[in-house]
Amino acid sequence: MHEFELIKKYFLNLSKNNKSSLNLNDDVFFDKSKQLVVSIDTYVEGVHFIDFKKPELVIKKIIRSSISDLICKGVKPKYYFISGSGNNKSFSSKNLGKISKSLKQEQKKYKIFLSGGDTVWSKKLSFTITTVGFSKKIIFRNNAKVNDDIYVTGTLGDSYAGLEILKKNINTSKMLKNYFKKKYYQPNLCIELTKKILSFANTSIDISDGLITDLEKLINKQKLSYRLSLNSIPISANLTKLLFTKKLNKVSFISQGDDYQILFTADPSKSRIISKTAKSLSIKISKIGKICNRSQKSEIIDQKQKKIALKYKGFYHNF
Amino acid sequence: MHEFELIKKYFLNLSKNNKSSLNLNDDVFFDKSKQLVVSIDTYVEGVHFIDFKKPELVIKKIIRSSISDLICKGVKPKYYFISGSGNNKSFSSKNLGKISKSLKQEQKKYKIFLSGGDTVWSKKLSFTITTVGFSKKIIFRNNAKVNDDIYVTGTLGDSYAGLEILKKNINTSKMLKNYFKKKYYQPNLCIELTKKILSFANTSIDISDGLITDLEKLINKQKLSYRLSLNSIPISANLTKLLFTKKLNKVSFISQGDDYQILFTADPSKSRIISKTAKSLSIKISKIGKICNRSQKSEIIDQKQKKIALKYKGFYHNF
Repeated sequence: MHEFELIKKYFLNLSKNNKSSLNLNDDVFFDKSKQLVVSIDTYVEGVHFIDFKKPELVIKKIIRSSISDLICKGVKPKYYFISGSGNNKSFSSKNLGKISKSLKQEQKKYKIFLSGGDTVWSKKLSFTITTVGFSKKIIFRNNAKVNDDIYVTGTLGDSYAGLEILKKNINTSKMLKNYFKKKYYQPNLCIELTKKILSFANTSIDISDGLITDLEKLINKQKLSYRLSLNSIPISANLTKLLFTKKLNKVSFISQGDDYQILFTADPSKSRIISKTAKSLSIKISKIGKICNRSQKSEIIDQKQKKIALKYKGFYHNF
Repeated sequence: MHEFELIKKYFLNLSKNNKSSLNLNDDVFFDKSKQLVVSIDTYVEGVHFIDFKKPELVIKKIIRSSISDLICKGVKPKYYFISGSGNNKSFSSKNLGKISKSLKQEQKKYKIFLSGGDTVWSKKLSFTITTVGFSKKIIFRNNAKVNDDIYVTGTLGDSYAGLEILKKNINTSKMLKNYFKKKYYQPNLCIELTKKILSFANTSIDISDGLITDLEKLINKQKLSYRLSLNSIPISANLTKLLFTKKLNKVSFISQGDDYQILFTADPSKSRIISKTAKSLSIKISKIGKICNRSQKSEIIDQKQKKIALKYKGFYHNF
């Protein structure tokens, strides 16, 4: 059973009768009366990160993935909590020193601070990160309008290329290897957009599970369809190079997750302000498609206006 | 390394330069400017609960243990988040149904509601519970005064008796077995005291790791000492019976944890209001000792004014 169905079946009834703007189907919890926004994520070794050989990098990835949930909703993360389960080896003095140093760097970069947590003994290593922010409003899921433009920040696919390199499924030059591995462990979050995005996005999500999966999650309750132009989906110059030299398929890279870019929709009238914002903040925001009505079928169109079939939609937490 | 030392060495520096009333050494995080109180705890199968044969009971224990952290600080829990890591067996439809039903009962009993969470796949079962409440003030740790009386709510040791019965280390009548097992899985939280305790307690903690361990945690930064009277430490009529028939030692039962009663200190002038509060709320509050100054040695005195040595102080999370 997918995580979404599981929540719906067993837990949605536990949150119905409260006055807060709760949405178990959203990425975050929003208590409007208290202006409180909370996001919680658990990361398990072997599932969400390969291993713990580089704790200083794993911890950066985990923190960025967690605060990304707030950032994509237009909320500045303020503080975070870490609960770590692991053994003596994972939490050796050496590793804790590395973790602490990395956290300090992330705190400086994103202006967040550690507020507490818990450490427990477990054979299996996992972390649960709680991120807290405050905001009068947030951008909800399932609020797209028919004819909205679909946008994405930054570029997609670099993180997956990094993962494939780490798994030794792709071999390339040392320079490219380092570039992609860095993108996997330290994705660039679009934190500059946090406050601005509230003024133009109708609905938003961060791309953690893959472009298509996250787009479908974004509008699944609305049952709208979408039309994406493969050509417009932004990838880095380095990924273009890698795809070309290795004869790899663009679709399979942009459909994977872990990029933590922001996917949002906006009314066509916002097109100019979005371009201006991107320019003034020196960030990349690309228009990649359109929201269509229920009667149409979702599709991805290539350069020759041909429909593309998607074998692998992205990452699901299966139960 | 003890959890406390670990936090101090590696993580305290990450939280220094913020304006919130943060205290990584306390049970909860308190953001005074936002009146926000947060507590996070992780529970691992085989460490914090024996097994998952009775998910409906395990989940109750976990929830109560979590909200207890707020209650003992004088804060009403408002909502909670669950992050569960486990496999298909632990999160089978049957188990999820049982968990959902139990959560519903706890929500009704403690007027809390589920606000979100996360489920991830892992061989090892664990839960991280985040509890949120709102309060203008909280009772901090390390705020005892010399000559304060030491108080405890309810009775101690029943939960440990339940654990020993579940582990088959103690055999007794079916009636007593059921009584203690219930106390282990469903400890009675003193939620009635939440708002009142702010008016008389100087410092407080919930007894999760054991009376002595938690008392020492409560005042460890003050380096004060204490004098406890073993005779005054409250145990239930059923535990008195069990100890008598099995020739068991009272000290070893009250030094174990998992009772989730509130341990607090108060100025002797508050004695009357505390008695009145206990009476009006129909709860048991017992005076069990005194806070003494640094030059004295902490001690527990039995009926004959003899000092008692403590072999086992309680539960530490060792790393």
